[in-house]
Amino acid sequence: MGIRFYNARILTMQDNMEIIEGELWTEKERISYIGPKRKEIQQGFEREIDLKGNLILPGFKDAHTHSAMTFLRSYADDLPLWDWLSKQVFPMEAKLRGEDIYSFSKLAILEYLSSGITACFDMYFHPEEMARLAVDTGFRTVLVPGLNDFNFSLEEMRDCYQKYNAFHTLVSYQLGFHAEYTTSKALMEGLAKISEEFKAPVFTHNSETKGEVAGCLERYGMTPTALMDALGMLNYGGGGYHCVYLSDEDMDIFKKRGMTVVSNPGSNMKLASGVPRTAELLKRGIPMAIGTDGAASNNCLDMFREMFLVTGLAKLREEDASVVSAEEVLKMACVNGAHCMGLKDADCLSEGKLADLCVLDLHQPNMQPVNSIVKNIVYSGSKQNVELTMVNGKILYEKGKFFIGEDPEEIYVKANRRMQELKG
Amino acid sequence: MGIRFYNARILTMQDNMEIIEGELWTEKERISYIGPKRKEIQQGFEREIDLKGNLILPGFKDAHTHSAMTFLRSYADDLPLWDWLSKQVFPMEAKLRGEDIYSFSKLAILEYLSSGITACFDMYFHPEEMARLAVDTGFRTVLVPGLNDFNFSLEEMRDCYQKYNAFHTLVSYQLGFHAEYTTSKALMEGLAKISEEFKAPVFTHNSETKGEVAGCLERYGMTPTALMDALGMLNYGGGGYHCVYLSDEDMDIFKKRGMTVVSNPGSNMKLASGVPRTAELLKRGIPMAIGTDGAASNNCLDMFREMFLVTGLAKLREEDASVVSAEEVLKMACVNGAHCMGLKDADCLSEGKLADLCVLDLHQPNMQPVNSIVKNIVYSGSKQNVELTMVNGKILYEKGKFFIGEDPEEIYVKANRRMQELKG
Repeated sequence: MGIRFYNARILTMQDNMEIIEGELWTEKERISYIGPKRKEIQQGFEREIDLKGNLILPGFKDAHTHSAMTFLRSYADDLPLWDWLSKQVFPMEAKLRGEDIYSFSKLAILEYLSSGITACFDMYFHPEEMARLAVDTGFRTVLVPGLNDFNFSLEEMRDCYQKYNAFHTLVSYQLGFHAEYTTSKALMEGLAKISEEFKAPVFTHNSETKGEVAGCLERYGMTPTALMDALGMLNYGGGGYHCVYLSDEDMDIFKKRGMTVVSNPGSNMKLASGVPRTAELLKRGIPMAIGTDGAASNNCLDMFREMFLVTGLAKLREEDASVVSAEEVLKMACVNGAHCMGLKDADCLSEGKLADLCVLDLHQPNMQPVNSIVKNIVYSGSKQNVELTMVNGKILYEKGKFFIGEDPEEIYVKANRRMQELKG
Repeated sequence: MGIRFYNARILTMQDNMEIIEGELWTEKERISYIGPKRKEIQQGFEREIDLKGNLILPGFKDAHTHSAMTFLRSYADDLPLWDWLSKQVFPMEAKLRGEDIYSFSKLAILEYLSSGITACFDMYFHPEEMARLAVDTGFRTVLVPGLNDFNFSLEEMRDCYQKYNAFHTLVSYQLGFHAEYTTSKALMEGLAKISEEFKAPVFTHNSETKGEVAGCLERYGMTPTALMDALGMLNYGGGGYHCVYLSDEDMDIFKKRGMTVVSNPGSNMKLASGVPRTAELLKRGIPMAIGTDGAASNNCLDMFREMFLVTGLAKLREEDASVVSAEEVLKMACVNGAHCMGLKDADCLSEGKLADLCVLDLHQPNMQPVNSIVKNIVYSGSKQNVELTMVNGKILYEKGKFFIGEDPEEIYVKANRRMQELKG
């Protein structure tokens, strides 16, 4: 038998933001019961945890990140996107070995867990490293390649798609490429064919900066979204990371193709890229999810900061404090992220769904008084409130301690030592 | 004897951002030693704390807040400033009794401490309650009145100024008023006289919204800053809270009068008020400090979120990722806040200064690797990193536990119970 959480508040996020009081049980990797306290408790739980009124909710999904980029945290700051990429990021990334990606991504997984994040949509190189890491740590990972003219190939992507979608229950793989401005037309056309072959969605960085859109218009006479659609890459949907500068016509394509906008407000802010049209996207019924982006740009992997920024920046942009409610934001962070990443069984809490969840400590000053739990989470919540994070039925983080198979101190020491070598 | 912190990194913030490795000792309410490990350790410390390489820095100063407004957290959201004030805030505030202000502010103090904040600049009514609370909890508090046409009087302010500046080492009092748009000219003129009498600075909400500035221009043909100067209120300096819409001429006055801009980016964002001209203010050498504003608008009292927003919003506003460095922001949060609040002895860490400090846990994933500790704090830091908060030589918060004389659970229960009554 699995774990019994009792004296819990449970925000299932099935259809609404109703909070039920009672119990949640797990059995192996799934949820076996959610409901009121049962008079006759089933015996033989591995653990029974008294939550003392604390809140269980679906884990956050980090729907766009580059986990390994933790090594560049606070290393390359205060530069615009292109300079940052070409002068600081690319030269350092060129030095990375596969094993570096494993260990720097492990650092990211610690941070995800401390923020209640139970799955990430990871765009990076060396998928074999991240896949192995997901299995070693128990962390759910959806891989997407950063295919471009300098890295990776269509053949490799095709192989990876088949390999990693049959690799392990914690791992899956989606098609994608880095961005229009780093990828040739021939490569994008090849990707469209693979999308057609697998009937699979495609994901990429899309319209992150004004310059990116202007460059694409110059090269193709079309926006990145229109180009992808024209090349036949969007026939099975997919999503765009960032999407700061979508035109009305781009939004029509997103809507028509059932695509998700994955917003990364912290990164867009720190790189001075801009603020997306979140209120308009929601009005049009385009699904939105939230990503942290990598630690090199953000610089932290904190879903609470991102949630506040999604609504706060939209309020500023529209000069209207009423746009983008806390409920909508929380749904993006938990449910929509899962849908976008193809994690159909990890979106909300119900019997039979995967036990990917987090527990928030409401017995902290920033969660009091309890006028609205959902608003408290989005407007006032913090990583400090994360009491426990469970992925696939296993507790990987609890009260500041990590259970991923390696001592965090060792992970820190390795990351610092290797970063020193890379700088040298 | 006081407390010995050893194996510490210490960011004194005296002149630069240099970090020294060694020890910090306290004796009563002051710092008695900062420097390398001493061979012959003085005996008789009350406690000796091994910081294991964690960081001591000056406590954050919350340079603008309304502590008691915790009761409205997640109660009145998603409204523009004036509707929010007139429809939600004022009617609820009208029901408050003095004892409510004491207990709701106590909740705020828990939150300050959990965020490494060691002093607040608190604008509210019933100063006797907040003064008593500061003494009861050990939390350093600078009181400033929210004088306006409906609340408080010049005579009361005059009395309070004398009374609370001689009340207790943890309490002081500055002159101020709510805002031009809630205060008659006669009252502002009266305040100018008191400022002259005590040769004291004046603080107020200033140019928070476009509407506020437009209204003042209509009423007086001058901006709020120009009006205050014309009325003789700024002869001894002071500061403005928010200052989102300062004109170049306003900035000239701030510069000439040695005034501080206290930025409140989280509140300005959530109320859709706007983004201040932070880069321009810094360029002109105008000192800036940071406040959380009250929990009714922000909704949390978290200096880490505010620090990131100060620089992030400036980067977005200027479309330039290089403006407003992490170093400048950290100086605002620690040093400038103290200067603005008149806390000359709590600005940085050195022998003889007040032991108002916090300890940040660097052994957490968001603080690794250690490419830059200062950037890590501002760009990636979180309340989760606050290991300990000390005010006036006393540890009031340590590893999630509070030492302010009352069990937090009781504070939460009281706050919820009273909020239910107020809603009813």
